[in-house]
Amino acid sequence: MADHAIRTARAGLTQVIEPADAYGVIASKAWGPIRLLEIIQGQTPTQQDWIALVGAYANDGDFTKKLRNTIGEAIQRWRRRSTYLNPNQALDYIASLGGHFIIPEDDDWPCALADLASTEPIGLWTLGSAAIPPVERVVGLVGSREVTSYGDAATTMLATKARSMGLTVLSGGAYGIDARAHRTALGASAPGVATIAVLAGGLDRFYPAGNVELLHQIAADGLLVSEMPPGMRPNRYRFLNRNRLIAALANATIVVEARYRSGALNTAHHAHDLGRSVGAVPGPINVPTSAGCHRLIKETPTMLIDDPADLESMFDTFTDAPAAQQPRGDERAYDTLTTEEMLVFDALPVRGRTTVEHLCGITGLSVPRITGILAKLSRDELVARNEQGWRKGRDTIR
Amino acid sequence: MADHAIRTARAGLTQVIEPADAYGVIASKAWGPIRLLEIIQGQTPTQQDWIALVGAYANDGDFTKKLRNTIGEAIQRWRRRSTYLNPNQALDYIASLGGHFIIPEDDDWPCALADLASTEPIGLWTLGSAAIPPVERVVGLVGSREVTSYGDAATTMLATKARSMGLTVLSGGAYGIDARAHRTALGASAPGVATIAVLAGGLDRFYPAGNVELLHQIAADGLLVSEMPPGMRPNRYRFLNRNRLIAALANATIVVEARYRSGALNTAHHAHDLGRSVGAVPGPINVPTSAGCHRLIKETPTMLIDDPADLESMFDTFTDAPAAQQPRGDERAYDTLTTEEMLVFDALPVRGRTTVEHLCGITGLSVPRITGILAKLSRDELVARNEQGWRKGRDTIR
Repeated sequence: MADHAIRTARAGLTQVIEPADAYGVIASKAWGPIRLLEIIQGQTPTQQDWIALVGAYANDGDFTKKLRNTIGEAIQRWRRRSTYLNPNQALDYIASLGGHFIIPEDDDWPCALADLASTEPIGLWTLGSAAIPPVERVVGLVGSREVTSYGDAATTMLATKARSMGLTVLSGGAYGIDARAHRTALGASAPGVATIAVLAGGLDRFYPAGNVELLHQIAADGLLVSEMPPGMRPNRYRFLNRNRLIAALANATIVVEARYRSGALNTAHHAHDLGRSVGAVPGPINVPTSAGCHRLIKETPTMLIDDPADLESMFDTFTDAPAAQQPRGDERAYDTLTTEEMLVFDALPVRGRTTVEHLCGITGLSVPRITGILAKLSRDELVARNEQGWRKGRDTIR
Repeated sequence: MADHAIRTARAGLTQVIEPADAYGVIASKAWGPIRLLEIIQGQTPTQQDWIALVGAYANDGDFTKKLRNTIGEAIQRWRRRSTYLNPNQALDYIASLGGHFIIPEDDDWPCALADLASTEPIGLWTLGSAAIPPVERVVGLVGSREVTSYGDAATTMLATKARSMGLTVLSGGAYGIDARAHRTALGASAPGVATIAVLAGGLDRFYPAGNVELLHQIAADGLLVSEMPPGMRPNRYRFLNRNRLIAALANATIVVEARYRSGALNTAHHAHDLGRSVGAVPGPINVPTSAGCHRLIKETPTMLIDDPADLESMFDTFTDAPAAQQPRGDERAYDTLTTEEMLVFDALPVRGRTTVEHLCGITGLSVPRITGILAKLSRDELVARNEQGWRKGRDTIR
């Protein structure tokens, strides 16, 4: 368990530093969260503080000066928001709701977030008793809020499969695809954390209103996560930056249904930037509801996902069952025939019988060749013979 | 106009040599069609003939011997089919139907077929007055015979767009996608050859029976093509090899709707092998009717086609209109804002007004910075101002 003072400082930092503010990460790494908060609360950075900050860049005069100036401006920016500062109250409040505030110093901090580098969150507010599973056990299912019955069905298929593989279904708690993903995951009985919702605002206010009951259920049976402290509303900036957390916490993100311009594409782009796998479910082209998915497949290295079994190849290191080689369709022995074998097979009647001599005239192959081919086709049960001659095997008739 | 004797010889060769028989191409190149037919008709290859055949390989003793043996066997194979030989009758017959037999020696022979190398056809039987357009003006639209209303609609969209670009729609004359592609092309009024059907059997017998009327219309207003002479039935071997001609004659082949195992995929693979562009139209994943299209996109370098405008980028060298950069969706100025601009914009109310001082407290930005940002947002009409203060611009409300 990390030091209480550090946790309190980080809680305070989340009240004044907006998500994905790289200077907040730089300053808290250089000075530690406690010292950074002291400075935001009014202390003047000492010469030693500045040296700690520019240490790595000390040989680069110009850059050092710029960084010092920029951090100075950032401190002013954070100070102007100090009316929001009340970490103890926020920590008490989240505890009273049954929640936690986890920080990078904690053992159960998801190490996948380190991939965010200078936009790693300062801490995460959570509701629920589950811990965030390792990234290799998490799949993000995201998509549009206006969902069609098709998108709904595709989400249900994928979330069900994900749970059957023991994966946690991560999404954004919104209407539409998100809600369907969470609900399906909650309904499936399987080991591990069923579902996690990453919200853009504080966990004291469930947004959107229509999902309040669902979010309560996620808090009870899964986990709610936000980098915003209680009291903060989810604005568009926070929504867009929330998406980077979904991307970072999941090994693969799948966009199930999204229009040409959709926030879900933003999540996919974050996932690409982080080197995570990205998938998209195609759909009909004569309605606009899957245009964003098609756009991802056309313009970015996105896997087309048309089968829940695709999840197995995306997570293949972590499941016992290898992806089936030929999951669908009836493999016909015909497909494996050589040209000459096809010529003979094609020349055989379905009804009635024919002779080797007749086959010879049709195919132009020699008698020994035809005899050999018929023997092979017999073994594969593609042809049948009686005293009257040869015909196609009964189960090869199309 | 090529020599009549050569044409007659090639016509005869199509009666005894099956499609894609590489040894037929090798022998007719080495000996010329007339000499090859003489040999098939019973003359013994002279020492000079063998030298002409192995010329290029003369230094490779083993290979030369093998090639000579294999061609010897091929000649036996072709000779056994000599009951079919009657080139003059076939030529008279196709002429009586209003058709032609075109050969590589003709000026209007499609040079794109040379890409087939050792499987280039010996000649093409045609019905119709049109010539085959250059490959750059031809798009192949292929797919399954069992078509859904969705596949039907997608085919109509693509064929209509192709004709509006002056492209010729090439297909296989089958039920389903093929028939819809041909019919749509015939119905669109545009310059150039409307449509070409490449058939797997002789042009005296229209197959399948239900498309007889359509095929007659294609012969009248477009072109029917087959490498099989009159009298030859379309068997499966010939269907599969017919697909290579569709692939070769089109600059791009698009699979509109196809199941996981579909002959249309075979056409796409031929197109890939020839270095032609290949596209596939996605569809719903909860029915099996587009699984073959999805498979192509997943497993091969196939373009996802979800917009008729995609044809423009596939044929971009040849059309005046460049593909639209952002064909769909409403581009919001918001998407281009910086982080600080987003923070300010998000902090503005939709109703009521706010002050710069208040924005300063919410965003943590300095007063001069906020004033500057508000000025920029004003120019973009994202914000509005009156004596009471600032709010979001009216048309940015979501």
